[in-house]
Amino acid sequence: MFATCAWRQDAYAVRAVLFAMNNPARNGREIERKFLVKELPPGLDRFRSYPIAQGYLANEPGGRHVRLRKKGKTASLTFKVGRGRAREEREIHLSGKQFAALWPATVGRRLRKLRYEVPWKNLIIEIDSYRGRNAGLVVAEVEFPTHAAARKFQPPSWFDREVTGEKRYSNVKLARE
Amino acid sequence: MFATCAWRQDAYAVRAVLFAMNNPARNGREIERKFLVKELPPGLDRFRSYPIAQGYLANEPGGRHVRLRKKGKTASLTFKVGRGRAREEREIHLSGKQFAALWPATVGRRLRKLRYEVPWKNLIIEIDSYRGRNAGLVVAEVEFPTHAAARKFQPPSWFDREVTGEKRYSNVKLARE
Repeated sequence: MFATCAWRQDAYAVRAVLFAMNNPARNGREIERKFLVKELPPGLDRFRSYPIAQGYLANEPGGRHVRLRKKGKTASLTFKVGRGRAREEREIHLSGKQFAALWPATVGRRLRKLRYEVPWKNLIIEIDSYRGRNAGLVVAEVEFPTHAAARKFQPPSWFDREVTGEKRYSNVKLARE
Repeated sequence: MFATCAWRQDAYAVRAVLFAMNNPARNGREIERKFLVKELPPGLDRFRSYPIAQGYLANEPGGRHVRLRKKGKTASLTFKVGRGRAREEREIHLSGKQFAALWPATVGRRLRKLRYEVPWKNLIIEIDSYRGRNAGLVVAEVEFPTHAAARKFQPPSWFDREVTGEKRYSNVKLARE
């Protein structure tokens, strides 16, 4: 029986890899840099934007956490571990019912923002304009395919200083109501 | 005697309904007491049992956590907050794919046990016989509909001392590998 259990765990691992290969949701390592924004780029309304509401089910002191998010009409649950440029991330899409069952558990640990997706060179800059108690805060995040690309990145002139890994600007922190 | 049997059937019927519901599963407050087990009750093999594998995505120091579980073939994600007799709980069922995508994140925070569901008076006693590094540990949990029922509970003679709320016997703690 225990051999069966161990085998099952292996099978889960294999399925997880296959799933990650086929699934649009990202699973694995993300390499990101975060900046404050001096001024919004011109013509921002041309770009795609989504209202985002997110809340946290549990946050460990070291940065490990489980997040619920509604982005437009899409709901997801995301696990992240680590801080700074490189973090492990695992994400699943949730049905509306699944999301509705868990969302009440995030009371007091939520935030809202409007996200713009701005193509820039061969990258996408995500601009987050916060709502609610963080209104006025605007942050840009850029995800990179490699550490080299992250190092070489030349921020556009409308970026302000880099805040990658700064606790104060982490979403977990900003979600404390 | 007849009344006892009817109660048992009700308890099973309620469980069956919960089992059959897709989303959400149990959400709300659970009132539970936990005991060590002196000796296993006779004829344990007559009762339903399931292998359980569970792991933790994130645990806060105060007991708030997010758990992944596979019980038999059913996968779930559960949020719990609080310690001791009364805890808030929210649970959703996961598809095999959803479970497989998140399970690798629980490495080093897992446990395995065999659960027996033993009808006792108008209640179900869940007996958990741990596997792996916790092998030899046997714990019984009883869930109650009200605080009054929890107070009035008379443990059967094969129960050992109560360990409700004792950190040492929390599953989060037992899952540290």
